[in-house]
Parts: sequence; structure tokens; C-alpha cells
Amino acid sequence: MNFASDNTAGVSQPILDALGLANDGRASSYGADEWTKRATEALCEVFEREVGVFLVPTGTAANALAIAAATPPWGAVFCHADSHINTDECGAPEFYSGGAKLVTLTGGGAKVDADECEAMLKGWGFGVVHQVQPACLSISQASEFGLVYKPDEIARLSEICRRHGMALHMDGARFANAVVSMNASPADITWKAGVDILSFGATKNGAMCAEAVVVFRDDLRASLGYRRKRAAQLFSKGRFLGAQMAAYLENGHWLELAGRANVAAARLEAVFRKATGARVAGPVEANEVFVWLNEAADRALKGAGAVYYDWSGDPGLGVPGGAGEKLCRFVTAFATTEDHIDGVARALGA
Amino acid sequence: MNFASDNTAGVSQPILDALGLANDGRASSYGADEWTKRATEALCEVFEREVGVFLVPTGTAANALAIAAATPPWGAVFCHADSHINTDECGAPEFYSGGAKLVTLTGGGAKVDADECEAMLKGWGFGVVHQVQPACLSISQASEFGLVYKPDEIARLSEICRRHGMALHMDGARFANAVVSMNASPADITWKAGVDILSFGATKNGAMCAEAVVVFRDDLRASLGYRRKRAAQLFSKGRFLGAQMAAYLENGHWLELAGRANVAAARLEAVFRKATGARVAGPVEANEVFVWLNEAADRALKGAGAVYYDWSGDPGLGVPGGAGEKLCRFVTAFATTEDHIDGVARALGA
Amino acid sequence: MNFASDNTAGVSQPILDALGLANDGRASSYGADEWTKRATEALCEVFEREVGVFLVPTGTAANALAIAAATPPWGAVFCHADSHINTDECGAPEFYSGGAKLVTLTGGGAKVDADECEAMLKGWGFGVVHQVQPACLSISQASEFGLVYKPDEIARLSEICRRHGMALHMDGARFANAVVSMNASPADITWKAGVDILSFGATKNGAMCAEAVVVFRDDLRASLGYRRKRAAQLFSKGRFLGAQMAAYLENGHWLELAGRANVAAARLEAVFRKATGARVAGPVEANEVFVWLNEAADRALKGAGAVYYDWSGDPGLGVPGGAGEKLCRFVTAFATTEDHIDGVARALGA
Amino acid sequence: MNFASDNTAGVSQPILDALGLANDGRASSYGADEWTKRATEALCEVFEREVGVFLVPTGTAANALAIAAATPPWGAVFCHADSHINTDECGAPEFYSGGAKLVTLTGGGAKVDADECEAMLKGWGFGVVHQVQPACLSISQASEFGLVYKPDEIARLSEICRRHGMALHMDGARFANAVVSMNASPADITWKAGVDILSFGATKNGAMCAEAVVVFRDDLRASLGYRRKRAAQLFSKGRFLGAQMAAYLENGHWLELAGRANVAAARLEAVFRKATGARVAGPVEANEVFVWLNEAADRALKGAGAVYYDWSGDPGLGVPGGAGEKLCRFVTAFATTEDHIDGVARALGA
Repeated sequence: MNFASDNTAGVSQPILDALGLANDGRASSYGADEWTKRATEALCEVFEREVGVFLVPTGTAANALAIAAATPPWGAVFCHADSHINTDECGAPEFYSGGAKLVTLTGGGAKVDADECEAMLKGWGFGVVHQVQPACLSISQASEFGLVYKPDEIARLSEICRRHGMALHMDGARFANAVVSMNASPADITWKAGVDILSFGATKNGAMCAEAVVVFRDDLRASLGYRRKRAAQLFSKGRFLGAQMAAYLENGHWLELAGRANVAAARLEAVFRKATGARVAGPVEANEVFVWLNEAADRALKGAGAVYYDWSGDPGLGVPGGAGEKLCRFVTAFATTEDHIDGVARALGA
Repeated sequence: MNFASDNTAGVSQPILDALGLANDGRASSYGADEWTKRATEALCEVFEREVGVFLVPTGTAANALAIAAATPPWGAVFCHADSHINTDECGAPEFYSGGAKLVTLTGGGAKVDADECEAMLKGWGFGVVHQVQPACLSISQASEFGLVYKPDEIARLSEICRRHGMALHMDGARFANAVVSMNASPADITWKAGVDILSFGATKNGAMCAEAVVVFRDDLRASLGYRRKRAAQLFSKGRFLGAQMAAYLENGHWLELAGRANVAAARLEAVFRKATGARVAGPVEANEVFVWLNEAADRALKGAGAVYYDWSGDPGLGVPGGAGEKLCRFVTAFATTEDHIDGVARALGA
Repeated sequence: MNFASDNTAGVSQPILDALGLANDGRASSYGADEWTKRATEALCEVFEREVGVFLVPTGTAANALAIAAATPPWGAVFCHADSHINTDECGAPEFYSGGAKLVTLTGGGAKVDADECEAMLKGWGFGVVHQVQPACLSISQASEFGLVYKPDEIARLSEICRRHGMALHMDGARFANAVVSMNASPADITWKAGVDILSFGATKNGAMCAEAVVVFRDDLRASLGYRRKRAAQLFSKGRFLGAQMAAYLENGHWLELAGRANVAAARLEAVFRKATGARVAGPVEANEVFVWLNEAADRALKGAGAVYYDWSGDPGLGVPGGAGEKLCRFVTAFATTEDHIDGVARALGA
Repeated sequence: MNFASDNTAGVSQPILDALGLANDGRASSYGADEWTKRATEALCEVFEREVGVFLVPTGTAANALAIAAATPPWGAVFCHADSHINTDECGAPEFYSGGAKLVTLTGGGAKVDADECEAMLKGWGFGVVHQVQPACLSISQASEFGLVYKPDEIARLSEICRRHGMALHMDGARFANAVVSMNASPADITWKAGVDILSFGATKNGAMCAEAVVVFRDDLRASLGYRRKRAAQLFSKGRFLGAQMAAYLENGHWLELAGRANVAAARLEAVFRKATGARVAGPVEANEVFVWLNEAADRALKGAGAVYYDWSGDPGLGVPGGAGEKLCRFVTAFATTEDHIDGVARALGA
């Protein structure tokens, strides 16, 4: 009953097997191998076009590299105050970009509010050397609080970016969950809606350590090879990144994995909706459930061995907390089983 | 017959198996797992003392983090002109340190010449704000040209460092090969000889993607947790780094792997010494063989499918090249088989 | 009638004369001159103790150096959202610190709210590697909206800093105005109240290009000599920085200059309070007057040749704007004359 | 008899006067003033074309900004080992560029050897992500050892740069001395010979604190406004930089000042050539004289109060030192008088 994070899960069996299969004889190092080629081709297929692909082992690396490619040191990166890049990466985007500034926006459910973004840009001193220059907007798909951006929402944000000369970056640590949630085509919620560069996550969804910077805007590609190496993110035995990513993508494995996580979240939500002492904090659109628990429910769950995060503040998902309630975050993963959900139900008497 | 690099080899079976075994249920993320604990304990045992351990996936990361921990942005890092940090990391040490300067030394076989180092420090403007300040000396064990530093050589360099307030960093991408080569205790060629911080490599010697920054001087530890996260080098599913490193170290597996590589290099050297058209360029002390090949020998080897690097310049190993000869580098690995060596012998008619 | 900024004024005559007097023969370069020594001694006298002094030509340099000395690259700098370091320095603190993050606080009149600061720190993940670490609180004395911090307000903030291991930086671009405003001793509103490092401004108050980083906490001094040189802020003909600062401080010249500016601001405030179509937006405690002007008043003033900034938002000084009013900022300087004030009065028919 | 450096001299009277004249009433800040406009126009006239101009107070700032504009963080800056940017700026180019690497070349008299440069580029891994990428060649005009680059020498270097996609930067801290020395047109030894960006010095030649980044290649201009502000190099009272530079340039004042320094150097050289115990180390082409002094001559000069630097190594000017001789550097300035030269002559009995 571990709902602490999707990254406490292990590796899906097909991906683990792929590592073993890749371990066959000698292979060219630093990404010049067959598996990396397969991963790249699979990503091109997924996105229905030629894309630039740079494999790295961590999501923070993918985000920091993508943002650095789009942002000069004197640039501003617009993002949600609750975004992972702002709160959980110890300043990696600042480091990789050479000291850019993250400018934070608000908005319910950790989704950027387009009106607020537009308003902030309206008052900005473009071309004024005293001010950092808006260079990039970063949004998370799905968001840190489990919501998804619909194609038209992305299109609106990308239109704002276009008008202000900014790149649109998508932190897709949970991209697969969003794709499954909306039953959308990956192309429709990225480049066709105006996304320029994507952190395509696999680690949270069943890989061991594999993410890709996927580049849709060609001028953002040139620096990334150097940036990745210089940031010490280029694997010597690159085939093992390639093998993970290829296995993740081939035969729709990634969508199957995300489907499991999303279904588990929906079931967990249903359990909470029926239970006493628990009130779901708002919509559940991917693999995260935010819930207000009263003391008894919290005690019962912890007593039953459930692991989850106490959250602080209000996630802005629409349902405010009440007296004696605390906010808790439950994350499901491909490895979340019926048993786990049933365990929650039992603990809550639901 | 791939002698291009030790990183074209795959993963040793016990390490690969360890990944599968670690993939059991949920585990705390970001290094708070049992496997990382085991790896840390194993390193403490190997070095016969408590050490600080920071696991990362690439050797460049280990080097850049270690150097950054020891060097302020206005610091100078003394190193050999042919060191990996100077020639093959696209400026990673400069990036991680915030812009420090690498000051290059010469010396045969890519080993730092202590006299030259001393002489350069003698003329340095310590405390003069116009000059970058010597903060760190970085040496590679084994060196990039396959030589090892003996304990007394390290002690001499560390004494110079001590006297000038510099830290001594060891790039141990091929540390295991050096340990086996000298049949030395890891402690004797590191902290007992004055090494302050070590990049402990495993990837070139049979791991998939696992290196450790091993810290012997306590004051160098404090920043490394933040630096690693900020550099996007902290794995979320940290158990898979821990599992690699634990399997690498436990039961002397690492020394067995390095032993295989070193023996292969010795055999290869013997083949070259017997062959016509090949002259070994100097001592072979680890798993690299530099050899001068005449055109016929080069053609014969390439014709037979041998893969190796044409090198430029003179490695300074003591045997200069002659007319019509070109320098070539052969690297052996744990996966180099008798067959590979025999193939070389056959191609050269030796 | 130029009220755009204090930096549109020129240089006070005694400071200009000092440049001529310093231009006598040869002098040691890079700060090893008599004038720099005099300036340092004068600052020690002003602060009634030994202080570290680093002269630089711009206020942004003083701020960025001071903050960098107190903040590691993974550090957080707490500051007001309207602070100069956050809005007007194009990311200089981020650049100089190697990518630290500015965390913004609110509070009326661009003064940091201690309760909000305390609350934000309470929820911070100290020691958690995923989060940047609070290292420094920066406050502006006088604030960007013309308010001053009283000694007890500073003491409260410094106590918060102490408790959280943070340094307290004061941006004193208008420090002289604050000293005069409170008739406080410089010591009482800096180190005696817990300030660790101060950007001591002179340029806005009659110098040509002279600021000092004044260091009260000894451990913050060591890096500043190197940081200043590396940032290209060390003058070769350092005597001309020293001469400015010495002339500024000697015989209380700096307080006389600030007194003129403050008196002018008070007079201007009085004019606005009597005038029709103008409502002072709140307390005037230094040399800045924020005022709500209706359209007629604004037109009348601009028609009469007055120069001042249209401001946006609400400065939080206590008097909100009304319909048809716009916020305007008037800054006085040592060079503001009775004539200028009278001109405003005439234009407004006051 | 101060020959320590040209920066121990003060400010020429016309430039000092210009500061007083500029101190008239209010002026727009941050470079939007009449004096900066005049300086810019004067530079356009001097270079016989439209140029980009960015005024800064120090030569290190001009160099670091110019280099950063031309070099990405993963770039290599080729320069002479004895260049000011490599030896005397505490890593400012590394800092401003975000961690680029300086690659050092040799060559007599601190002039870059074109053949060596070409050879080094020949072996470079262009497009190989493991290696920093050559982005800029920086040469000093006049060189640190007092030699000048002739137009054809510059053209050869710029041709090499062109062929390798590198920018050619000229450190013109002593540009005026070079112009006078060759009686060359500024255009002929800069953009017409292929220089892309120039640090145009005035401080060493009679200004107080004024240098200009002069940009000949348009694509290098865009970032410089932001870089300058972010580096805290933008003066608020910008008119005083503009006034210095305008006065320096107008009516050929700069050439007159450099002429005095060069004539003084020539006379000093003549004195040394006649004196016993002194042997000039090679050609004197600008305002620096390197000379081998025996012990008696050294003692006599110091006894007479002469101030100059003991140098180490061999400047490579063609005349090696002999037994018992030490190398000394004498720098002349606009303020060096006949008396100073005569004093040297007297001390040496010449």
C-alpha cells in the first residue's frame, strides 16, 4: 500500500528484460548504438514526425536541459509556483541555464492560468535591459496535482508564447498518464498544439532511469548535444538508455502501464468518495488523488500500513478543506494492484 | 575484437542479475533504499574506514562533482593536459564548478610530473586577486595512457597539495585496474597516501551506469548532496544505482573483473611484442596497450575486424614512434576473451 | 523639474573636486592607494568598528557581490517582490551567485513582512536536497517605495535569519536617506541590529560611480576580493573610487546631501497634500513620493515640464488609488532645488 | 620614475575637465545621455563605419563581455598563454561566458603563432560533443609584451577563424599605442582585417575608468545589452563614461596621449641600449620595454627610486637573458616625462 510516489515502484518486466537483451556483446558507446536508434525511431513514430531526441537518466536532467536550450542566462522561465522545476529540483533549471529566473504563476491544480500569464507579460519590459526577458513557459502534463491540459488549453498558452517570442516547454514526467487520460494523440497535445520542447518521462511509469528531451522546434536542437555531455548526462553505455526507452514505447507498453496507474487512481478515488472521513479534493485526471482526511481516517490508513504524503496548503482543485481535515496525496503507479486499493477501502471501512 | 574502449563492453552477469533482484516491490526513492545502504557499507569496507558516498550514473558526473566540491569558481584545477577531465568532458568540470580554470601539466604517460607541478606552484600568486587560486590537483588512476601511480608517487603529490592548501582528487574511472595492477590495498593508494576525494568508477569495469564520489576529507562532503541533486544526477529509483555498486563490490567481483581486463592487456602486449610491424609504446600497467603499428600491421588488423583507436601525438610512454608507424590504442575489458587476443595474434601472424 | 530618479542628478561639487585632487601624480593601482585607505577608514568610523570594505562602481555590483558571498549556488535569497534585486538588475544576483533562486515576499511599501518570512521558512525543507536552501534575506534601506526599516524591525528580521542560518543583507542604495530620516546611527541600523553585509550606496546621493560592500560578519569577507576581480569590478585606477567615497563620507557630506533630498521630498509631499487632483499614496520617509494624480493634475505637471515615472500597481503604502487616478513616483535628490518644488506647486495651482 | 604600469598614471586634463563639463544639470541615466551618444559617434568615426558600442568601466569587463558574446559555455577561447585574459583576470572570461575554456597558445612576445593555432585546430574534434568547441580567438593589440600585430598578421589569423567558424576578438587595452606605433588606421587593423569584436581601451591611456566593447559583427550585438546589465557593468550616471570616452576620442586626444607614451618608451629603450648592465630583450613597438638588468643596474635603478616589475620567464622577444641578469618590465604612459627617462639614464650612468 505504497502511494508515496510513482517512483517508489520498480521497473516493468518488459523493460527489465530489454536490459538483459541489450547486454549482448559489444556496442558503440555514447548513444551511437542500435537501441538508441530504435528509441529515437519509436519516438518519431509516437509523435508522427521527425523529432530531436536526447536520452538522459533523470527527469530533472530532461527539464533542465530543455529549459536551458530555450532560455538565455538573462531569460525568465514562467512556470507554476507548484511546478516540480520550481519546488523540487534544487535549482537545476537555474544551474543548467546559467542563472535564469523562474517567474511563478498561480492557478488551481498546479495548472498555469493563461489570463494571469498574459497579464504578467503585458506589464513586462521587453527589450529593457534591467529586466530578465521572458524566454520560456514551462507547463507540466499531467500537472503536479494530477490535472491535464486539454489541447485547446495548450494552444491558448502556446499562442501567448508565440506572441511574446517565448518557447513552450512541457514537463512530461507523467506524459503517458495524460495521454491515456484524454485518449489524446501525443502529437495533438504537443507540437500540434504548439509545444516546442518536451521532457518525455518514462522513469515514473516503469522505466529504471530513462527520459528523453524531445525537440519539436529545430533551432532548439543545436546546443543540446553539447549541453548534455557537459552536464555529465551522456551515458557511455548508452544502449541501456536506448533499450529502456525502446521497450517502453514499443507495442504500446507505455500506454498500458499508464493505463494501469490511471485506473488505479480512479478506483482509489471511488473508494474515497464512498468512505467516511475522506473527501476528494477535486478532479482526478491522471494518477494522483488529493484527498482531505479527518484524523480518524488518517489514523486508520496509517495503521493499516498505507504510505502517502501529508501535503500542506490547498491544491486549488476546487474542494477546500474543513476543520480537522488534513490534505494527503496518493499517487498510483503501474505497479499499484487491486490489493492496494482494497487495503485502503478496508482501512476506511468503505 | 573490439578494443575501442572498455565502455563498449556490456554489463557483467552478476551486476545485471542484481538489477533484477533489486526490482522487488516498492523501495524508498532518491537513495534512501537498502541497496544504496549496502553499496555505501561495501565502500566503507573496501576503504577500511567511514567514507562519504554519492552515487551517480556517469564518470564525468563523479569527476565534475568531486572537483566542484573542492574548487571555488575562482579556483584552478591542476591536471595533466591529456587527462579525461581536460580533453573529453566538454567542460563539465568548468560547468559544475562555476567556471574554474583547468591548468595543464605535462608528464609521460599522462601522469602528472610532480616537479613540474611544484615549479608551477612556486611562481603562483597565492592570495593575488588577479589570478585564479590553485584549489585542486586531479590525477587519474590508472592514467589515460594506462600507467598507475604508486603509493609513494601519490604521497609526494599529496604533500605538495597539503603545502599549498589544495585538495587531491583522483579520477578512478579505472581504479580497479590500478588496484589489481599493483596488488595494492584501496586504502593505501587513496586516503592513506593523501587523496581527499575519489571518483570511484564501475561503469568501465562491468557496471551499467554506476560511479561513486567517495569522500575522505569530511569538509568536502557538505555540499555534495545539493550539488548532485542540482546537477540532476540524483536517481529517483536510486536502488538501481545501489544494486549495481553493491554487486560490483561484494565478493570481490570488481577485482575479478579488473583482473580479467588486466590479464587480457598483458596477453595483448605479449602478442604485440612478438609480432612483426608492431612495437609497444611503453609499459602496460593496467588495461590499455599503446602500440606503434606499421602500415601492414594496421591493415592486417583492420582487415581482420579489429576495432581500436588511431591515436595522435606521442603518449610519452618511453618508446617513440618511427617512420611509417602510427600510434594505436587498444583497451581491454572484463569481457575481452582469449579469442579476441588470438584474433590479433592471427592477424599479425604472431 | 526632473523627478525621474536620483541617478539623473550629477555629482556633488566636493566629490567632483576630490577627483581632481586625487589626480596628482602616480598612485598604486587596484585599490592599494591612499584614497581607498581613507575611504575604508571613513567607513570604519561611520560604523564605529572595523569593517571589510570592497569598493565598486555600481549598486548592482555591490548587491550581487554581497549576495553571492552569502549564498551558495543552491541557496535561496529571500527578498521583497518589488526589491531592486528582483525587478531591476536583469538577474545579476543569480549570475554572481552561480544560479541562486530569489524567493519573493510581499509587504506594504516594499518592506519585507516578518510574519510572512517566518511562515515561509517554517514550511521549508531545510536539509532536503530537493529544495534550494535559504541562505540570505535581503532588505532595502530605504525601501524601493521610500519607507525605512526601524532598528527593531531589522532586529526582528535578523533574529529570524539567525535562527535559520541565514545572512541578513541590506541593499543601502539609499542608506544615507534612511539614516537621515531616522536620525539613526549607521551602526544601530546595521550590525548592531544584526545586518551581516551592506551595499553602501553613494552614487544616487551625489557620487559619480561609487558604492561599497561593507562586511560586518568576518566569514563573509574571504571570497569578496576574488569575486570582485573575477566580476571585472576592480578598478585599475582605484584611487578614483576611493576619492569619491572618502569625499562622500568626510565631514558628514553624505548626510548633508541626503538631508537635502529628504527635505525636498517632504516639501514635495506638502505641496501634493495641499494640491487638488493629487493624493499622496502613503508615508514619505526618505526621498521618494508616491502620489495618485488625476488626469488634470498629471497633464498640468507634464505640461509644465515635470519628469517623473508613471507607476503601475499599488505600492501598498496605505492609500489606495481611486477612479481616474494614476500612480506616479517622484524621486528627489541632493540636487533638487526649491525651484523644482515650486514648479510643481505652480503647475498644480497649490 | 614610476614604470610599474600605465594604470598608475592619473587622468589626462582634458578628460578630467570633461567630467566637470558633463556635470551640468540632469541627464538621462543608464547611457541614454548626450555624452554617450557623442562617444558612440566618435567611435563610428574612428572606425569609419557604424559600430556597436557598449561602454564599461574596466578592461576586464570589456574583454569578458566581448568573449562571452562570442563563446557559448561549451566553447573554447584560443589565446596566448601570456595573455591578460589568461593570467590576470581571475577567470573573468570563464565567469562571464558561463564556464568556457581558455586554450593557450605560445609564440614570441605574447603574440599568437598562426601556425600553432592552425595545427591545434586541425586536430580538433569539431562537432564532437566530448570536446569544447573552438568559438573565439583572442589576441592583444598591442601584446602584453609590447609587440603589435600588423594588418597582414591579423588577416591571416582572421582567415583561420573564418574557416573554423570562430570569432576574432582583439583585446585593445593598449589599442591606441598600437595605432600610433604602426601609424595605421583603426579600421585597417580591426574590421578590415577581420576583427569581429574589440575591447577598446582608454583607461591605461589617460581615462579614469572607460573602455568600450566595439562590435563589428552584427550578430554579436544582440546579447551585449543584457550581459552588461546583468554583469553589473551598466553605469546609472552613464554620462560620465560617455564624457570620458568622447573627450578621449575627440580632436585626436587619444592618439596624442599614446604618442607620448610610445615616444617615452622609445627614449627609454635608447637609454637602455646605451647603458651598461642593461640589455633590451627585443623589439619595443608600443609602450613597454623589457630589459635584462644585471644586479648593479637593478640596484642602481631601485636606489634612484625607479619603480618597475621584476618579470619571470623569458618574454620570447628574441634576446635571451644571460647569467646574473634578471628580466624587468618598464611601462611608459602619457604621463611619463622626460625627467623620468633622464632619471633612468642618470641612475645607469648613461
